[in-house]
Amino acid sequence: MALRKDRRIGRHAILLLLSDESDEELTKLKQSGWSGCIGKVGSMEAHKVVAAIETAAKNNHVIESGIYRESHALYHAIIEALHGVTRGQVQLGSVHRTVGLRFAVLRGNPYDNQAEGDWIAVSLYGTIGAPVKGSEHETIGLGINHI
Amino acid sequence: MALRKDRRIGRHAILLLLSDESDEELTKLKQSGWSGCIGKVGSMEAHKVVAAIETAAKNNHVIESGIYRESHALYHAIIEALHGVTRGQVQLGSVHRTVGLRFAVLRGNPYDNQAEGDWIAVSLYGTIGAPVKGSEHETIGLGINHI
Amino acid sequence: MALRKDRRIGRHAILLLLSDESDEELTKLKQSGWSGCIGKVGSMEAHKVVAAIETAAKNNHVIESGIYRESHALYHAIIEALHGVTRGQVQLGSVHRTVGLRFAVLRGNPYDNQAEGDWIAVSLYGTIGAPVKGSEHETIGLGINHI
Amino acid sequence: MALRKDRRIGRHAILLLLSDESDEELTKLKQSGWSGCIGKVGSMEAHKVVAAIETAAKNNHVIESGIYRESHALYHAIIEALHGVTRGQVQLGSVHRTVGLRFAVLRGNPYDNQAEGDWIAVSLYGTIGAPVKGSEHETIGLGINHI
Amino acid sequence: MALRKDRRIGRHAILLLLSDESDEELTKLKQSGWSGCIGKVGSMEAHKVVAAIETAAKNNHVIESGIYRESHALYHAIIEALHGVTRGQVQLGSVHRTVGLRFAVLRGNPYDNQAEGDWIAVSLYGTIGAPVKGSEHETIGLGINHI
Amino acid sequence: MALRKDRRIGRHAILLLLSDESDEELTKLKQSGWSGCIGKVGSMEAHKVVAAIETAAKNNHVIESGIYRESHALYHAIIEALHGVTRGQVQLGSVHRTVGLRFAVLRGNPYDNQAEGDWIAVSLYGTIGAPVKGSEHETIGLGINHI
Repeated sequence: MALRKDRRIGRHAILLLLSDESDEELTKLKQSGWSGCIGKVGSMEAHKVVAAIETAAKNNHVIESGIYRESHALYHAIIEALHGVTRGQVQLGSVHRTVGLRFAVLRGNPYDNQAEGDWIAVSLYGTIGAPVKGSEHETIGLGINHI
Repeated sequence: MALRKDRRIGRHAILLLLSDESDEELTKLKQSGWSGCIGKVGSMEAHKVVAAIETAAKNNHVIESGIYRESHALYHAIIEALHGVTRGQVQLGSVHRTVGLRFAVLRGNPYDNQAEGDWIAVSLYGTIGAPVKGSEHETIGLGINHI
Repeated sequence: MALRKDRRIGRHAILLLLSDESDEELTKLKQSGWSGCIGKVGSMEAHKVVAAIETAAKNNHVIESGIYRESHALYHAIIEALHGVTRGQVQLGSVHRTVGLRFAVLRGNPYDNQAEGDWIAVSLYGTIGAPVKGSEHETIGLGINHI
Repeated sequence: MALRKDRRIGRHAILLLLSDESDEELTKLKQSGWSGCIGKVGSMEAHKVVAAIETAAKNNHVIESGIYRESHALYHAIIEALHGVTRGQVQLGSVHRTVGLRFAVLRGNPYDNQAEGDWIAVSLYGTIGAPVKGSEHETIGLGINHI
Repeated sequence: MALRKDRRIGRHAILLLLSDESDEELTKLKQSGWSGCIGKVGSMEAHKVVAAIETAAKNNHVIESGIYRESHALYHAIIEALHGVTRGQVQLGSVHRTVGLRFAVLRGNPYDNQAEGDWIAVSLYGTIGAPVKGSEHETIGLGINHI
Repeated sequence: MALRKDRRIGRHAILLLLSDESDEELTKLKQSGWSGCIGKVGSMEAHKVVAAIETAAKNNHVIESGIYRESHALYHAIIEALHGVTRGQVQLGSVHRTVGLRFAVLRGNPYDNQAEGDWIAVSLYGTIGAPVKGSEHETIGLGINHI
């Protein structure tokens, strides 16, 4: 039931974001059996961050659109990742702040037991701060769920 | 007032944790003018995670022990990082879960304006789950504060 | 000071919602000395849920409009019920989700001691999910306050 | 992808708790294809509530012990249900209150699409209040997750 | 239904704490028709703060011990005041911090409408910080409820 | 490292708000070496409260506009003060309530050790309630940060 060291889904999802060559990294991960996608979103509204990630995951067939359990798994992984980004209240513009984020979604089995099936990781990295250029610092978030 | 691309304190603090050669990475960061430390802590009690990081930061002279403003800055950065790890309630054993974490503390100025002074980043990476071996998934957190 | 088994206000308020014959049930409860009302609200905005319940309770004379302590008691019961519905952040559209709810408000004394006076229960039952038909699951909430 | 009216897992899980004949109700639900269990727990410590439900669900084979994804699904459903019970902070004794709860766990597919697979509902109903007999009111919670 | 300027219960409760002559101030407030009490509590455990205030309010007959609605009103006012003190998570020692607080409880009608009846205010003022002498800053909280 | 009794920044910031002669009080505080400002804001949107305080603090040179660390320190002090005002969710209109607040910002060193440097206090006092005249009670908040 242990996590496989070379299959740490969260670590992969974060390194993908922090890499200077994210596209190449994503290609390699896909060759290792993961499915996934990357993207960008900047907004003062948390629901736009949620929607951007959901849309990317569906368009790239990381989750299946017509199955609610897949959307449900992704949604909770996104909200968990937003906790790391917002650190207290999952709110942006309503408390006068904005984010500029890159995101990654990764799907596969990180455990050595085949029966664990697929899991999904959502990683977020970027800046958070006042709606004034430069008045910002970095932020990160990671949500992981079974799917 | 912008973040310097090569001085992204949060990114450095996370890569330090995810690296297979953290000690060498930390040495390099120190040569680039950062101060910092790394460590490990496993616990069902959040206050032990806080204490472990505070002690490491003081023992390694990342913060000055006798100055409260330094402890205050670090404390809030730790709690923010714990939000990413716990994603909802900053609680571990009291909601029947445990963590095994590596942590890094990094200090320096990530901005191109000298007047921004020092900032501190606390990064956490490891696993969270039931108090049963293997019943766990990865988790990450990052807190950043001026110091 | 104990709760009277036949006067469990929260249980009555929830069964009222789950019943296929809510109107008949409400009539019976009124005959047993309770005051109350039922209604429906669907929204992506939490404040519309609050307002719908407040309006129904005032229009049906479950609370007295001109007395702030009555509104205050009801307001906190509603917010507590919304905690059960939202499970973490009392937010709907701002985190990209919507609700379709039935609600009940019930008022009376659930204790065997007359001096306990009136209490108010707000129950919510329905679905929560993405703003996409069928992408939703059930949700429930109950708030109880002295009035 | 819609919820089947006769398969509303949350409604079943709550009615099971509120029934005066829970054992008979559970038997009927099992005959309709659900798996599930019921139990009781009283505590000032939230982790004991979590553990009691996890143990009951494993002992009654509602979830499979050796598969982490099953425990993970159940854990999050329990914590969500506790949000309804605690309404703000998932804390009991640490904020000087105690609970006496009945719980139910129910598992099956509430949707008309077979591909939605199994979902799990955790319902909680009982009293919350000061650690003084009679100084308490009712409380309810429901958590639903894909499994 | 408006607040009477000379009967602002929250303002009175806070000034009582900040005064250098709290006992004299309390005596004056009692002469103006308020009931109330003041006290001190230092702890790393939030439940001890709750218990100290409840005990003082009962011993000084600010609330009636045998009536649950009175304890219920006070409890929620205390927890609300603790939100101001803790600013995020109603936790002390579990996140490695401690408080030294003075508290006041005040009871009376702050509105010009007699029908508003009694309200209760709980105010807290003191320091919060690390469990190290001097590593602390001030903190305040106010909770108000109908009773 | 102890707080100086005559330099309790939080106490000063609150008394400034509760005084009937705030302007005179502020003048005296400035003569004692503090910098600060006072103002008013009424809104159903939390971000307008944040913005009003930030603007006042910048216009009155309590913080330096071009330095992000100063805005960052102020921002977190404001959000902490809003926790006291909102007591649970840092939300106003989205949960159907509104505030009418006076605010003060005070800056200086409250400790007897010169090395502690400047700290900033944000205090809030006023009313919170339904968007209906008179349906409101008092509320207070205090946030303190190193700057």
